Amino acid sequence: MITWEEYIERISKMRKNIYINGEVIGRDDPRVVKGTHTFKVTFDKAQDPEYRDLVVVKSHLTGKPINRWTHIHQSVEDLLNKQLITRKLCNLTGGCIQRCMGTDAMNALSVVTKDCDLKYGTNYYERWLKYLEYFQENDIVASCGQTDAKGDRSKRPGEQPDPDQYVHVVERRPDGVVVRGAKLHNTSAMVDEIIVIPTRALRENEGDYAIAFAIPADAEGVYLISKYSEFSTRAPGLEAPLAEVGDVECMVVLDDVFVPNERIFINGETEFGGQLALLFALFHRHSYSGCKPGMADVMMGTAALVTDYLGIAKAPHIRERMAEMVSMAEIVFACGIAAGHHARKAASGTYVPDIVFANIGRRHAGHNIYHEYALLSEMAGGLAATLPHSRDYNSPVVGDFVRKYVTRRAGVSAENHYRAWHLAADLLVSHTASVAHVAGLHGGGSPIMEDIAVMNSYDLESKKNLAKYLAGIKE
Amino acid sequence: MITWEEYIERISKMRKNIYINGEVIGRDDPRVVKGTHTFKVTFDKAQDPEYRDLVVVKSHLTGKPINRWTHIHQSVEDLLNKQLITRKLCNLTGGCIQRCMGTDAMNALSVVTKDCDLKYGTNYYERWLKYLEYFQENDIVASCGQTDAKGDRSKRPGEQPDPDQYVHVVERRPDGVVVRGAKLHNTSAMVDEIIVIPTRALRENEGDYAIAFAIPADAEGVYLISKYSEFSTRAPGLEAPLAEVGDVECMVVLDDVFVPNERIFINGETEFGGQLALLFALFHRHSYSGCKPGMADVMMGTAALVTDYLGIAKAPHIRERMAEMVSMAEIVFACGIAAGHHARKAASGTYVPDIVFANIGRRHAGHNIYHEYALLSEMAGGLAATLPHSRDYNSPVVGDFVRKYVTRRAGVSAENHYRAWHLAADLLVSHTASVAHVAGLHGGGSPIMEDIAVMNSYDLESKKNLAKYLAGIKE
Amino acid sequence: MITWEEYIERISKMRKNIYINGEVIGRDDPRVVKGTHTFKVTFDKAQDPEYRDLVVVKSHLTGKPINRWTHIHQSVEDLLNKQLITRKLCNLTGGCIQRCMGTDAMNALSVVTKDCDLKYGTNYYERWLKYLEYFQENDIVASCGQTDAKGDRSKRPGEQPDPDQYVHVVERRPDGVVVRGAKLHNTSAMVDEIIVIPTRALRENEGDYAIAFAIPADAEGVYLISKYSEFSTRAPGLEAPLAEVGDVECMVVLDDVFVPNERIFINGETEFGGQLALLFALFHRHSYSGCKPGMADVMMGTAALVTDYLGIAKAPHIRERMAEMVSMAEIVFACGIAAGHHARKAASGTYVPDIVFANIGRRHAGHNIYHEYALLSEMAGGLAATLPHSRDYNSPVVGDFVRKYVTRRAGVSAENHYRAWHLAADLLVSHTASVAHVAGLHGGGSPIMEDIAVMNSYDLESKKNLAKYLAGIKE
Amino acid sequence: MITWEEYIERISKMRKNIYINGEVIGRDDPRVVKGTHTFKVTFDKAQDPEYRDLVVVKSHLTGKPINRWTHIHQSVEDLLNKQLITRKLCNLTGGCIQRCMGTDAMNALSVVTKDCDLKYGTNYYERWLKYLEYFQENDIVASCGQTDAKGDRSKRPGEQPDPDQYVHVVERRPDGVVVRGAKLHNTSAMVDEIIVIPTRALRENEGDYAIAFAIPADAEGVYLISKYSEFSTRAPGLEAPLAEVGDVECMVVLDDVFVPNERIFINGETEFGGQLALLFALFHRHSYSGCKPGMADVMMGTAALVTDYLGIAKAPHIRERMAEMVSMAEIVFACGIAAGHHARKAASGTYVPDIVFANIGRRHAGHNIYHEYALLSEMAGGLAATLPHSRDYNSPVVGDFVRKYVTRRAGVSAENHYRAWHLAADLLVSHTASVAHVAGLHGGGSPIMEDIAVMNSYDLESKKNLAKYLAGIKE
Repeated sequence: MITWEEYIERISKMRKNIYINGEVIGRDDPRVVKGTHTFKVTFDKAQDPEYRDLVVVKSHLTGKPINRWTHIHQSVEDLLNKQLITRKLCNLTGGCIQRCMGTDAMNALSVVTKDCDLKYGTNYYERWLKYLEYFQENDIVASCGQTDAKGDRSKRPGEQPDPDQYVHVVERRPDGVVVRGAKLHNTSAMVDEIIVIPTRALRENEGDYAIAFAIPADAEGVYLISKYSEFSTRAPGLEAPLAEVGDVECMVVLDDVFVPNERIFINGETEFGGQLALLFALFHRHSYSGCKPGMADVMMGTAALVTDYLGIAKAPHIRERMAEMVSMAEIVFACGIAAGHHARKAASGTYVPDIVFANIGRRHAGHNIYHEYALLSEMAGGLAATLPHSRDYNSPVVGDFVRKYVTRRAGVSAENHYRAWHLAADLLVSHTASVAHVAGLHGGGSPIMEDIAVMNSYDLESKKNLAKYLAGIKE
Repeated sequence: MITWEEYIERISKMRKNIYINGEVIGRDDPRVVKGTHTFKVTFDKAQDPEYRDLVVVKSHLTGKPINRWTHIHQSVEDLLNKQLITRKLCNLTGGCIQRCMGTDAMNALSVVTKDCDLKYGTNYYERWLKYLEYFQENDIVASCGQTDAKGDRSKRPGEQPDPDQYVHVVERRPDGVVVRGAKLHNTSAMVDEIIVIPTRALRENEGDYAIAFAIPADAEGVYLISKYSEFSTRAPGLEAPLAEVGDVECMVVLDDVFVPNERIFINGETEFGGQLALLFALFHRHSYSGCKPGMADVMMGTAALVTDYLGIAKAPHIRERMAEMVSMAEIVFACGIAAGHHARKAASGTYVPDIVFANIGRRHAGHNIYHEYALLSEMAGGLAATLPHSRDYNSPVVGDFVRKYVTRRAGVSAENHYRAWHLAADLLVSHTASVAHVAGLHGGGSPIMEDIAVMNSYDLESKKNLAKYLAGIKE
Repeated sequence: MITWEEYIERISKMRKNIYINGEVIGRDDPRVVKGTHTFKVTFDKAQDPEYRDLVVVKSHLTGKPINRWTHIHQSVEDLLNKQLITRKLCNLTGGCIQRCMGTDAMNALSVVTKDCDLKYGTNYYERWLKYLEYFQENDIVASCGQTDAKGDRSKRPGEQPDPDQYVHVVERRPDGVVVRGAKLHNTSAMVDEIIVIPTRALRENEGDYAIAFAIPADAEGVYLISKYSEFSTRAPGLEAPLAEVGDVECMVVLDDVFVPNERIFINGETEFGGQLALLFALFHRHSYSGCKPGMADVMMGTAALVTDYLGIAKAPHIRERMAEMVSMAEIVFACGIAAGHHARKAASGTYVPDIVFANIGRRHAGHNIYHEYALLSEMAGGLAATLPHSRDYNSPVVGDFVRKYVTRRAGVSAENHYRAWHLAADLLVSHTASVAHVAGLHGGGSPIMEDIAVMNSYDLESKKNLAKYLAGIKE
Repeated sequence: MITWEEYIERISKMRKNIYINGEVIGRDDPRVVKGTHTFKVTFDKAQDPEYRDLVVVKSHLTGKPINRWTHIHQSVEDLLNKQLITRKLCNLTGGCIQRCMGTDAMNALSVVTKDCDLKYGTNYYERWLKYLEYFQENDIVASCGQTDAKGDRSKRPGEQPDPDQYVHVVERRPDGVVVRGAKLHNTSAMVDEIIVIPTRALRENEGDYAIAFAIPADAEGVYLISKYSEFSTRAPGLEAPLAEVGDVECMVVLDDVFVPNERIFINGETEFGGQLALLFALFHRHSYSGCKPGMADVMMGTAALVTDYLGIAKAPHIRERMAEMVSMAEIVFACGIAAGHHARKAASGTYVPDIVFANIGRRHAGHNIYHEYALLSEMAGGLAATLPHSRDYNSPVVGDFVRKYVTRRAGVSAENHYRAWHLAADLLVSHTASVAHVAGLHGGGSPIMEDIAVMNSYDLESKKNLAKYLAGIKE
């Protein structure tokens, strides 16, 4: 395991291939560094006695202590602990910790490479085990490129006028393959590695699209076209932990990138390409059952804080709304527990969360995210949108006015009042807040994707038979 | 353990004290017998190899095999198994199996009698253990009388103009107490015993209301004023399992009923009276996490059946609604799993489900029950409300018309079409259906009760501290 | 205009063709008479000074005073007055007054017969005017048969294996046509006449299905297969106006019924057959903007009454729910006003409500009906489902108990308490209540039908152009 | 009437009293100028033949042509036209046009000054008429300061530890009064005048808080502490009309401001102070029935555009969501029509919209605003949050990639695709978007304020009497 400082040192040496609003920037640019403060906790807390037992685990491969975000789940307890620590760390950043994509992709690969080998006699699992050793040894941070551009949505990958709308193999060489395409919506550009997997089920004639691999994020031909957002700038003296993080979303362009054989984990086996897509989504939705409640904790805490300062925390309509926020958070958490509790053990030994519970948890979160923001907005009131900028708070001319008129309850300082409103504003009214709204709906799969996943796996037939029994229908 | 037939034989000997629409009736009256077909499965399935492992457990008291509905939960597994078998048996009756009230009351008593003894040196636990032995040995069916009439809701029990609005002790004798009052909304009058517990938290000066006890359902002074409902009558040849059950709701009047000392489990200890109220509700809400999904299974199965017969089962808007029904059912189930998973072990050894998860599960069910009916109604269409009576289906004059015009899809007989619409009508459009709507909202505690339970136990303060940390507020 | 007594006298002479649960019955059978108490108000109030100005209008055809339910709308004011009086009369019956179907069908015919004549030189309008004169002169009550059985829903009318699944012409004679098929979901069998129109848009080769006509309800070959429901029986002394009405839903079978030429209003003109389907639905959905708020008034009044008796009417959570009930009712009413305000004048002079506003009003009502019941259920509490039968209220043995334990607030008699709970029970927990739930969703067109109507007529293109303008897109 | 250029010229001469993030700025600062591009249309369209008939009206005072935003409503038609033109102009700015506050305040003053004079023999109405003449003659733009800081919410204005938490008179002089306090959440600082009115009902001893007046926005002692937001910057060549507007929210501090007698419209008459608060809110909520649908048009247009480009516009789930967006917009519009239709004429001759319809319209909009964003977000997909910045679109290095991978449907250029995604991003993912979310909930009064307004005026008693009638309750 390495420290955060070692990590920053390591990536600072990478090739400059992050593009942002017309510039190419280094990995020390403040805009992207802020974006990585999210997963800083995953390194820091490995050293913190309060968290270490959850963050550090023993590798099933080497027996060495490793960071949980490089671990392959070996038990129900592993799944539940991943869920729990994800929630706890998201509490500390006030949002997504952005390191689970790599973990989830690695767990999905552990299952699918093994299953593919068992069916076709390939040796992907062995390759991948070597990669895993490297991954754990070096405490690697990876993103997962899954969502293709998709072009014309009425056409399948193999039917697109522009074949690059889905990442595909354009050349096969003895020592590897060359790939082309783009992966959209990748949170974080500041990673060591990018794991690329298919986005959907594939047909037999779509073998060139059934490709899964890992590459360094600065590999030749990789362009990380990034879009950043931040909370409002805070004047000196009004800094706050929440404001130290930013968000970077990334379009990963693969412009004829060479992938050596040892980094290829599925190559043409369309059935397993599709399964990989589903399994990554499954692990990722289970991660969501940890992070989403973690973010909901922050929102309900903020609601509790501002209603306390307003002196209305005990009003019945506030209590009722708060119960709704609690319920939304804990239902998602409960679904994650149930998904872990009903996990199955794959051939590789990896524990895979239950598909129905994992999906309905994510679905519930997605369906309710805007309502959750509405509840916070309702409780925080209009000041979240109209709060004077922080330099006016400190202004020698108007600062007294600002401080006087943001104060509500006796016994709470003007500064704490202002800080509370600013927190509400950060969560509700800022560029980053608006990204979080959309991410809460679509991140990890929109609710309609979970509908599909649930309906494809749920045993509705047995329920229909039950109805027939009760109706006295014999067929 | 006894059989269903033995049970019916046993209660047929009881004193006639069931009152229904102006009559006093015996326990062999078809209206109430139908009402008990609900818990018939709990006896029958104890003999059925497919279910026996879940229904029959070993008593921790005597080591003998007993029916799970007389068992005290000794582990997380016990709680999860209770949840699971409740769902499975509700599937078979198409609704509430009406035997969990007694089970839940006994589990709550197991915890509170012990805790009270530990604090006050009373010997309620020992008394109760003797009662438990009788309860298990005789495979007793009990209801739980909790909800008082409450009179003027702006006044506490001790302040009511009519003191009988809450059940209370009116006389104390050396050998027992005399109680007066009424318990409302008791599902089922056809029980061996009634366990009576307080309905709410009590103040020190309300000791006469802190009374918990068990009495035979036909004890002197007990009047069971019953209200029954049934599905529409089915003509010969169109009978169906669902239609064999009925519903009986009961106002239990205690008109100066004597309770001997050995049947008294709390007597004046107001603190524990209140805890008993909360704990019964908690166990009961956990039971709900089994029965509610069990009933939802029936509803989604019916929706699947009728949309299949209509030939629209695969339409996107149907799939989306079906995913919503699945999600509602499985979220409640997931909350029950999480409540079991996070159970605590009480001093008596009883496992008590987690209060937050158990309550949000019940809350989610209650908040969504009418929406669930709306979804089924939407999918089933208007025929659920306008389906000709079953004697018209068989009529020599108009039967041909009915059969012709209820038929939709080729390959399904007119009878099966009619049976499917009738099932939808039973669930949506019948006196019993309408009872189920209200029971789905209020049974086991209305959503607002769960709000209160959640908000009283949830650690909102830690969330507020989290918000302060992220906002940089130091106090 | 005639009186209610004259109406009853008139229909009592009709041929016995009402079939109900295996019997054929006369029009004096209490089950169906109760079903007609709904539209009794439309006759009675024509004599009542308080209502007469709204109920009685001047015929644009004859200049004579007629009942509004036989009137063709000649102005915006007519549409708004129809909406208003519908609401007021539904208040008095506590539900649907069941006379608007005929009115709405006649208005739709007024428009479509004229438009068809203008295009094809037919003379349907003249024929229909003669029928109208008869209709107004005799104060006719008509139902409208629209919804066909539809058989296999994946097939169009002309493609059904059984051609009778949609009403169609089976024989053409010089003096008229013979029709066969069935019309489902017809509320009320106790009418003078049945107006039959197509259920949907038709293709050119489906001319036999483009048939609209009026026949006496007891015409040869007409079978009214009826399904009735009632509120719970009330013991003597506890009668109430609400309980005097019942509901009869009817499957109208047309078994080779002869229709003379003068009663045929569309015959083969598929384009106008489709328009008739749409226009009847439009007028009917506008009627809904009167009746639905009228029924909502009853529900919110009941909620206000029971929460008053419970002493919780001023609690914040009750006020919030009440505001929601008010909002649901008045939004639907506002949509009706807007639909009237934006009415267009057809070639025949008839005023036709705006299609978007009329449809979104009905849609809003349908989408919220179950939620509305949920709100009432929440406020009324469990007693709506468990209230002892009314003969127990009067019982010499247990009556005292019932009276004592249904009493809540001082200053309100036991009887009034019981009456209030019984009203809540009638609306929430009875066979009729459950019919009303489904009728509130599907009656007059399910929400999905309004989606279709709205989307087919809404000018979404102009909104898209607006988006293009704001985005700077020039195409 | 003046032109936009004349307006800008006029305000450029005002005293510098706008404070923004630590600076004091002139009215030519780009941040605030952008904020005024919103009401530019109200000047421009007075010259535009397409709009002039709706924008220009005849003053009832002088008979001269004036801008509608300075007009006092003289008829139902005036109210409906105001609603309609508000919708049309909001279409052109893509959001709030920010000029109705002044109009609504003037209309409220027209009613209340007259009513006060009639009761107390004061002469406010005459004063106000003179001000109106000035207002109309000079085509004045005014904001309305209503919402006080409110300090401790558990205390009334007269009980605050800091009396300035509500604006109040601190000194009375022969020629006027001196006021102190602050008004929050004022949209726009770039106005000629500020009209200040009370925020709530007042008690008799709170006469110092019953003060209404108009002052120039740069009067001595006025500090406009402003908070601005913008859409993301667009690179050259990608400009768009939507992006030309900005939003400025303003805390108006009144630090001992002198108000001369002729500008005082209520002074101490607490009853009318309270009525003014209610009436402004009422007129403003009616304005909302125009602007909100206008903004909804933009959202549904954007949804229609992006789903068209994605090739999924005709998918059933999209059509269903679109019908929901249409329904939300048109329900609010319908409520405005109904409020206009049922307007009452005040003693002054002003037409006042119906309180129930105006409030439920605003309430519906507020309750659904986050859901509306959720629908757009769902249809637009994740790209709204992850779209590369516009300088990358034009980049010589990565521009080709961006253009290639944002293209979906054949026949639509890369630029138009990008513009469509950018529009969706502007509305969903930007600082300004997030302000609009909160403004949509709280602007013009949060839903809970409308609940209060509705419940205070709705005749629930008549509904309760209806329930009693139906239940047979005689009291």
